[in-house]
Amino acid sequence: MSLRVAIVGATGAVGEELLRVLEERRFPVGELLPMASERSDGRAVAFRGGELPVRRLDVAALRACDVVFLSAGASVSRALAPELRTGRPRLYDNTSAFRLDPAVALVVPEVNPHRLTPEHRHAAVANCTAILLVLALAPLERRFGLKRVIVSTYQAVSGAGRRAVARLLSELGRELAGQTLADAAGSAHPFAFNCIPSIGEPADHGSAEARTTGEERKVVDEARRILERPDLPIVATCVRVPVLRAHSESVLVELADESATIGQVSAALAAAPGVELRDDLQRGVIPTPRAAAGGDGILIGRVRAGDRPGSFAFFLAGDQLRKGAALTAVQLAELQLPR
Amino acid sequence: MSLRVAIVGATGAVGEELLRVLEERRFPVGELLPMASERSDGRAVAFRGGELPVRRLDVAALRACDVVFLSAGASVSRALAPELRTGRPRLYDNTSAFRLDPAVALVVPEVNPHRLTPEHRHAAVANCTAILLVLALAPLERRFGLKRVIVSTYQAVSGAGRRAVARLLSELGRELAGQTLADAAGSAHPFAFNCIPSIGEPADHGSAEARTTGEERKVVDEARRILERPDLPIVATCVRVPVLRAHSESVLVELADESATIGQVSAALAAAPGVELRDDLQRGVIPTPRAAAGGDGILIGRVRAGDRPGSFAFFLAGDQLRKGAALTAVQLAELQLPR
Repeated sequence: MSLRVAIVGATGAVGEELLRVLEERRFPVGELLPMASERSDGRAVAFRGGELPVRRLDVAALRACDVVFLSAGASVSRALAPELRTGRPRLYDNTSAFRLDPAVALVVPEVNPHRLTPEHRHAAVANCTAILLVLALAPLERRFGLKRVIVSTYQAVSGAGRRAVARLLSELGRELAGQTLADAAGSAHPFAFNCIPSIGEPADHGSAEARTTGEERKVVDEARRILERPDLPIVATCVRVPVLRAHSESVLVELADESATIGQVSAALAAAPGVELRDDLQRGVIPTPRAAAGGDGILIGRVRAGDRPGSFAFFLAGDQLRKGAALTAVQLAELQLPR
Repeated sequence: MSLRVAIVGATGAVGEELLRVLEERRFPVGELLPMASERSDGRAVAFRGGELPVRRLDVAALRACDVVFLSAGASVSRALAPELRTGRPRLYDNTSAFRLDPAVALVVPEVNPHRLTPEHRHAAVANCTAILLVLALAPLERRFGLKRVIVSTYQAVSGAGRRAVARLLSELGRELAGQTLADAAGSAHPFAFNCIPSIGEPADHGSAEARTTGEERKVVDEARRILERPDLPIVATCVRVPVLRAHSESVLVELADESATIGQVSAALAAAPGVELRDDLQRGVIPTPRAAAGGDGILIGRVRAGDRPGSFAFFLAGDQLRKGAALTAVQLAELQLPR
């Protein structure tokens, strides 16, 4: 089997990771077409020991592909997907454009693979923070039932893209050289030595008051859809922290089964696909984003009883570019490979 | 009025801040005695335009002071306090040694000043994370009643002391120079580009399983004591983040008064002493640790309805060395100044 594969947004943070994951997993790529906007004119990407020139978007070429990974932002997906879906390729879409579209599959392979059918020509990769979260929530939902989820996140700057990483490093360089950064209101909050409780565009989320961020809305809406619990109470607070790579999440769950014990909860998490327990506080064994970076699943630790029967707290970390985006996209493509 | 004032631990992060706060607030210092361990032999501290040599601990000299600030760790406070209390000085203790001792006042001036009486010769300054939290919780408890608090923290490295800050900066310098830090289990988790969900010694908090950290235990126990709500359900998750200065906290409260509106909650917070609202998400007006650093109170924003009546989420940031330690200590001393 030898497929013609395109990556739209090949020079971005997720596009770069897609190239690595396709190599590592020996995805049956016969021909690879890396595409990007004119900002990337003249660039090349590394693949299987060689270099491939980056092309501008070419709808005709994309329509002739077998597999197209969309990683160039929601507006590009919105513009391209309707045309591509009438062509040859299957689409694996890393943007938010169609995640809540009932005609598009929203699937995390470890959680709801049955929702991706051979008929789906367009599958959405969920928001990175939502993917990491549902990997932990799904086994708890299955075993104990979820009543409520409260999550506060610690999100890496690479989640805001390559230019955000460059800005963080530049700010840190200036700070270490003794310069002080101005702290302004608005979008100019420095990343360096800061926590920014605002990710994505403010969204009103059905209320007259626009007090929720786009990222928080995505986490809530997408976790509900993936878990097939459209009314699950979830309170999410999404915060950018000066980490290069891997998101972390502090989670409190309330379980329907109030007799659940800490041992049962830990066992359910440990047995879940994509989850590795790192949970021995006394020995310093805890999940951290540094430890999670580059990994294929999430690390969970600090599992402990909350304040009432059935409530449990834990902390997780996972590589948002890899499991939260590129790896999940390739896994979805693998699920749909012709046999 | 002219007092003889000592700072035990004058060369530490909190000691340094105490010197600045005493200057700024024109505390009636007649003579200042900076003391520290032998590690600081030969050092001097800046005070009111001059330099004062740092002395080794001298119990006799301390007993002759009017005011002693203890900022050299819990073991030093435990060793010194019993002897000093029989002498002349009033003690303002920035360590955890006596915070839960019923004979010692645990007071946040904006919250429970009535609990500091002229008879108290020893007052404890609460844990920095707890101080910042109760500044937000106290007005809500007073107006609406608190039923439950869930908090996840984003704590600055300076909370772990000067050497921790030096380690973070050194790690960042190496990372920016292209070196990769090893990520080890145990206490050697790098600060740089990391989130570490373990602060303080693991503590069992009354359970057979030691799954709670010392910092989390302090936040819960001290907030309950200050709010005079010994059974208030609080779930705390304390996390170190690569911020130099100022702690942040993501808070969900459940109020007894389930009819409380977002407007009422915001108004109660805005009117509270030590609280400044920074809450206009659409315009990027949010609380951040960079904006809170150096300030005298906490910044609160992202106030929004939670998932059920009476539940509200918000984010706060406050300077843990200043309001979380040094400023509060000096305010306590001011409350007890002879009139």
